[in-house]
Amino acid sequence: MADINTNQETPMAHWTQGVKQSAIQQILAAATQPDILSFALGLPAAELFPSADYAQATARVLATNAQALQYGPAWQPLKEQIVKLMDLRGVRCHQEQVFLTTGAQQGMSLLARLLLDFQGTVMLERTIYSGVLQAIEPLQPTLLAVPTNPQTGMDIEAVATLLAGPHRPAFIYAISDGHNPLGVSLSYEKRLRLVELARQYRVPILEDDAYGLLNYDETLPPMRALDDEWVFYLGSFSKILAPALRVGWIIVPERLIPALSVLKEGSDINTATFAQRTIAAYLEAGHLEGHLAKLRQEYRVRRDIMLQALQISFSSKASWSKPASGMFIWVEFSGEEDMSKILEIAIEKEHIAFVPGHAFDLDENSYSRHCMRLNFSNCNIERIEQGIARLARIIQEVR
Amino acid sequence: MADINTNQETPMAHWTQGVKQSAIQQILAAATQPDILSFALGLPAAELFPSADYAQATARVLATNAQALQYGPAWQPLKEQIVKLMDLRGVRCHQEQVFLTTGAQQGMSLLARLLLDFQGTVMLERTIYSGVLQAIEPLQPTLLAVPTNPQTGMDIEAVATLLAGPHRPAFIYAISDGHNPLGVSLSYEKRLRLVELARQYRVPILEDDAYGLLNYDETLPPMRALDDEWVFYLGSFSKILAPALRVGWIIVPERLIPALSVLKEGSDINTATFAQRTIAAYLEAGHLEGHLAKLRQEYRVRRDIMLQALQISFSSKASWSKPASGMFIWVEFSGEEDMSKILEIAIEKEHIAFVPGHAFDLDENSYSRHCMRLNFSNCNIERIEQGIARLARIIQEVR
Repeated sequence: MADINTNQETPMAHWTQGVKQSAIQQILAAATQPDILSFALGLPAAELFPSADYAQATARVLATNAQALQYGPAWQPLKEQIVKLMDLRGVRCHQEQVFLTTGAQQGMSLLARLLLDFQGTVMLERTIYSGVLQAIEPLQPTLLAVPTNPQTGMDIEAVATLLAGPHRPAFIYAISDGHNPLGVSLSYEKRLRLVELARQYRVPILEDDAYGLLNYDETLPPMRALDDEWVFYLGSFSKILAPALRVGWIIVPERLIPALSVLKEGSDINTATFAQRTIAAYLEAGHLEGHLAKLRQEYRVRRDIMLQALQISFSSKASWSKPASGMFIWVEFSGEEDMSKILEIAIEKEHIAFVPGHAFDLDENSYSRHCMRLNFSNCNIERIEQGIARLARIIQEVR
Repeated sequence: MADINTNQETPMAHWTQGVKQSAIQQILAAATQPDILSFALGLPAAELFPSADYAQATARVLATNAQALQYGPAWQPLKEQIVKLMDLRGVRCHQEQVFLTTGAQQGMSLLARLLLDFQGTVMLERTIYSGVLQAIEPLQPTLLAVPTNPQTGMDIEAVATLLAGPHRPAFIYAISDGHNPLGVSLSYEKRLRLVELARQYRVPILEDDAYGLLNYDETLPPMRALDDEWVFYLGSFSKILAPALRVGWIIVPERLIPALSVLKEGSDINTATFAQRTIAAYLEAGHLEGHLAKLRQEYRVRRDIMLQALQISFSSKASWSKPASGMFIWVEFSGEEDMSKILEIAIEKEHIAFVPGHAFDLDENSYSRHCMRLNFSNCNIERIEQGIARLARIIQEVR
């Protein structure tokens, strides 16, 4: 990956020095070529988008209210719908705690800038969604790296040890369900213990629940259900409705809302009010529960097909877990293969893409260079079977 | 205004201490009450939104492409349309220099974070759009304040003097046309001189042209037409199409795009692809030129009616200029009235709102406490006449 600060002319802020373009962005460019079969990105299945129902919602909104294209404060009917949606997730909250964002990524970016001082400290897992690093990178923070594990997730006792040390992080970033990239969900005991630590040390948890409503087996409520003071919740319509609308939400103690509003206004004025109104109209028409049921059913099938295909091709060469939520299976190979190199060959020779594990590393040289993240939501079952077979050929060849 | 950092519990980043909620946000809350006649905000006229044409564009996009609701890279057809639109403004650029943003405000926020180090330096006018301050505030910059003037705009010789001094700003923020809040446009000589200074001192200009396509009298091309290396251009669909879509663009030297992409991905992944596709479809259908002509014609009438009403009510009490572009008239009262206090009375007694001049001050106690910014685009001519008459009653009473 090339350094992005190739600028010989304009002086740029110091944080840009040595910053790399994200592996995800590079793969997005390759993986959107029509002939590439991609397990790379966290994409929903396009053929399941509720395009017709959403088209009705947009037509209705545009026909009935001239203000639909105007600036406006956060749309209360959408907040009401989000409060109901959170109830489905076992979380009780009220509208005054809901803050609308331009997707969960913006929620993360806003909360990071709200809580984290320049060169402050953040605690997060050693293998984690790279977007959180991008959100905090301009603030050049010290990272407190917590060991994690694809079977059990974040090592909460390591969190306790780090919190007892000299550094007080601005926040702990955590994912209770459908971990990206590991696919793991936290046990009830871990959730409870992490919340207790947050309270004890007065360090908020940023709970990223972007995938939490996509659950295929029995799941627990997120940590926000255990504490409304120290757990700041990030939710999104991207995975359950449509990413192209860029609407998400934060649930925080009400006293944080004024500062968030200032930060938000300076960042992009407000979350697209047309998207707010049309999503609210879609939800008010009662479409979401059925749509969620359909997504869960279809993604469960895709997950199981991918697990089966992995079993057929890789049972002696790799290990993985069955994710109860989300869109990803994390595959750890037992050999010495460097998955970055395998990816290049895979795109070139077999027209197939995945994300190599190192893209999610806090620090280089961790074990994840032998791992890959596979997305199971975007491809239909034929393509999943084909794709895993193609991957098997590549791995076979390089061995 | 209350401090926003009222948080007794969660430690927040230091920049939040003493930060106030913006006057604009406070007024937005009051001014959206249905019984308030508002000259306060920079709102387009809702009755002129091309709702039917835009509804057709959304229906067409949703019916023809399942990917319309998916994540995706920047939509090339929209970039092509923006290159054409820039040509209308006298600016020649190519697609590789166009970077899509979640409105011009995000363009400002991204460029600020790209160029400005923590506690770095920024140069801007003493009376200026408050959104730029909100964009840079978390970086706690030193501000180099340039005198400005409602008749002639930014004092470019003061810029030269400051640039010759010890501080090297990360950028100079400037508005060539439809200045917010002053309504002024810069002369050709000023544009040229400012560009020369930018080149000489190697300091980029952030040229905010959000209002540049709304011109009512003869106007000049923006500074970006004079230099493609040191002028970074901010454009937006908010004022010419619809603010509720949150789509804008930056034009920068191509070498800045990779770093901007990293920052953008960390901020909100990408600009809503559904909005990108629907705006492109609207533009491809050829609707925009006619719509712009309609906006210019109607806003010109509203501007002239407001100028006439001001002449009737305030000719002996205040002064103002005729703006060639944009949405605002800046009115400077000759008396001792504090417009913040007048505003409270105006909302309370006459149900009318404006923005008091001090909301745009870099430093307290400047002359603008006797000034107000009036928007002429949002209200129809009857309401403009009514509103100015109501304002006149208030000013009369307090004298």
